[in-house]
Amino acid sequence: MSVTAAQGFTASGIAAGIKENGNPDLAIVVNHGPRLAAAGVFTSNRVKAAPVLWSEQVLKGGEVSAVVLNSGGANACTGPQGFQDTHATAEKVAASLNTAGCDETGGHAPGAVAVCSTGLIGELLPMDKLLKGVDKAVAQLTPHGGEKAAIAIKTTDSVHKTAVVTGEGWTVGGMAKGAGMLAPGLATMLVVLTTDADVPAAELDAALRAATRTTFDRVDSDGCMSTNDTVLLLASGASGTVPESAAFAEAVRAVCDDLARQLIGDAEGASKDIRIEVVGAASEDDAVEVGRSIARNNLLKCAIHGEDPNWGRVLSAIGTTSAAFEPDRLNVAINGVWVCKNGSVGEDRDLVDMRYREVRITADLAAGADSAVIWANDLTADYVHENSAYSS
Amino acid sequence: MSVTAAQGFTASGIAAGIKENGNPDLAIVVNHGPRLAAAGVFTSNRVKAAPVLWSEQVLKGGEVSAVVLNSGGANACTGPQGFQDTHATAEKVAASLNTAGCDETGGHAPGAVAVCSTGLIGELLPMDKLLKGVDKAVAQLTPHGGEKAAIAIKTTDSVHKTAVVTGEGWTVGGMAKGAGMLAPGLATMLVVLTTDADVPAAELDAALRAATRTTFDRVDSDGCMSTNDTVLLLASGASGTVPESAAFAEAVRAVCDDLARQLIGDAEGASKDIRIEVVGAASEDDAVEVGRSIARNNLLKCAIHGEDPNWGRVLSAIGTTSAAFEPDRLNVAINGVWVCKNGSVGEDRDLVDMRYREVRITADLAAGADSAVIWANDLTADYVHENSAYSS
Repeated sequence: MSVTAAQGFTASGIAAGIKENGNPDLAIVVNHGPRLAAAGVFTSNRVKAAPVLWSEQVLKGGEVSAVVLNSGGANACTGPQGFQDTHATAEKVAASLNTAGCDETGGHAPGAVAVCSTGLIGELLPMDKLLKGVDKAVAQLTPHGGEKAAIAIKTTDSVHKTAVVTGEGWTVGGMAKGAGMLAPGLATMLVVLTTDADVPAAELDAALRAATRTTFDRVDSDGCMSTNDTVLLLASGASGTVPESAAFAEAVRAVCDDLARQLIGDAEGASKDIRIEVVGAASEDDAVEVGRSIARNNLLKCAIHGEDPNWGRVLSAIGTTSAAFEPDRLNVAINGVWVCKNGSVGEDRDLVDMRYREVRITADLAAGADSAVIWANDLTADYVHENSAYSS
Repeated sequence: MSVTAAQGFTASGIAAGIKENGNPDLAIVVNHGPRLAAAGVFTSNRVKAAPVLWSEQVLKGGEVSAVVLNSGGANACTGPQGFQDTHATAEKVAASLNTAGCDETGGHAPGAVAVCSTGLIGELLPMDKLLKGVDKAVAQLTPHGGEKAAIAIKTTDSVHKTAVVTGEGWTVGGMAKGAGMLAPGLATMLVVLTTDADVPAAELDAALRAATRTTFDRVDSDGCMSTNDTVLLLASGASGTVPESAAFAEAVRAVCDDLARQLIGDAEGASKDIRIEVVGAASEDDAVEVGRSIARNNLLKCAIHGEDPNWGRVLSAIGTTSAAFEPDRLNVAINGVWVCKNGSVGEDRDLVDMRYREVRITADLAAGADSAVIWANDLTADYVHENSAYSS
């Protein structure tokens, strides 16, 4: 399953000692070909971690033969030394794979090894442990290693996240990590998707960008954007099947959607998953802007935590946007009850049942026919506790 | 003190029964002239409460003879009935004042009575209690009523807020309420400033807009913007003194600054006041954008609560802005310790002493000579608790 659901891939996940608690912290995913096509989407944060700067360059070539991922340290804001460490990691992975005979595709070059890191910002990685870990991880590569890889990239995730969609003769699978710092422009997350479909890099890129735009980019757990977000899609062509383009794009979207929903469901300290659907918008951009504003309103997030259908805070959030709407035409439903009609009091708020984890907010701008869905979480004392002591 | 520090004003604060707990909830401030010049600044939220829509019209005339303020209900998102209630309140205040003989300035017209409301959104005010309360409040007007007025406008404020600055022969004083929902575009706050200086409406307007731009507009406790924010400045001319323009503007700024600082110091559930100074910016707009991004980063706010000098979260927040900077030239100090230099690890973070309530973050963009200060609060479990149960 996971990144090894598709043919042509091996993976492993091991404990290299980067995490002080001894949990798994290093994963490798290898594409055994026959093709090495790849695409990537990265954080839009202008402060980018060293592995992001590295992998952006790797992806420009459109080929990735292996991905190495570590948890336990983000290698962000670590200066020239941090970048050298990422470079050395890619060199080590290529050398170790070649030594191990994983050279079906003509041998691994460091420039085709993507690197992903996640963890605390502002600290150098323990390179001695990491480099030794690479040899260990390479030795454990198997066509069934997807689950172990998914486990090794966890940080504060309570569960590992995988997803698979099968097409006609081909498969798309993937793994994700991310539990906090989730926001548009990509959550703090690392995602590796693999497929055995025979798809060139340009088509992978188009499918991945279209998929992330309406899935990971519309997850906004806490309004914070990471320095390390990376989503990679690797195609081995091992199935020998060239998929129909729309079907392949839809499969990639479905896997991303599944993983994005899992990220929200496991967000740090959250007790509610909030599905915010903005309808009646004059444009999709308007719908997304309004959805994000609602998703980021701390007062509303607290109210949802308290199972309080406080629709005034929804209107307050809508009012801060530049979207097209008239205040006295706004309608808001919470879990199906239209508590606000025409900008004023609607149905009885006591009818709203908020006992379950999923809460649905519908905001009708009454200004057009476009819509969008944003997923968010509530704001809880647990979130505060978890993030008050993270680096200490 | 407060709104009655300046000559020519009376005020009162009483319990009208709008709040169910019997606390004071209705205040009136009257300008006895000889002049009735006034200026106002209102929320930039597009969803505006009825009293804001009303008072914006009143202020267009440049004259305000009285202000009535209630806590216990925002009268926001209340439709046409809410607006009628605001109108009826202004009518009642004018009539009651005229009946009481407070007609030195030629009698009160409803169109010169500003109305302010604060409290829960989406509920109609109990107008029977409010209108009876107006008579009671008018009967208790005194030149020493400023403190009682300041107390009556509290919602979740733990203390009432007043400030006074004295010029040469004239005075500017004021009161403020606001403890949550503080954000740029004005906090959730009601502020009434009074002066006995002889200043025309246009000059009041210029002084007030300049003052709020660098004080209330740079307070960002929780990133949320209210539907009811109102700042009024009333001039009676009772001192007979025409102040020097710059000195007057500076006095207005100083009173606003004092009150804004008090708002941050009393923000809901906060345990830290965070002074974010952005220096080395290419423009003041850049400095403000970066300051607000830092102020609104929930992960950083949690870290500050945990007394954790997590500068990586500061860089993460800077990275989401469009300000001019190079990531590898950013510097960050927390309480004077430059924990981040050139975008990477700087001085030892263990040197940072965060035991005190005020925390100072300095972000140097190394891109110019402009700067700005934004005030924010930390994010705490108390904030979550207070806002999870507010309307229930």
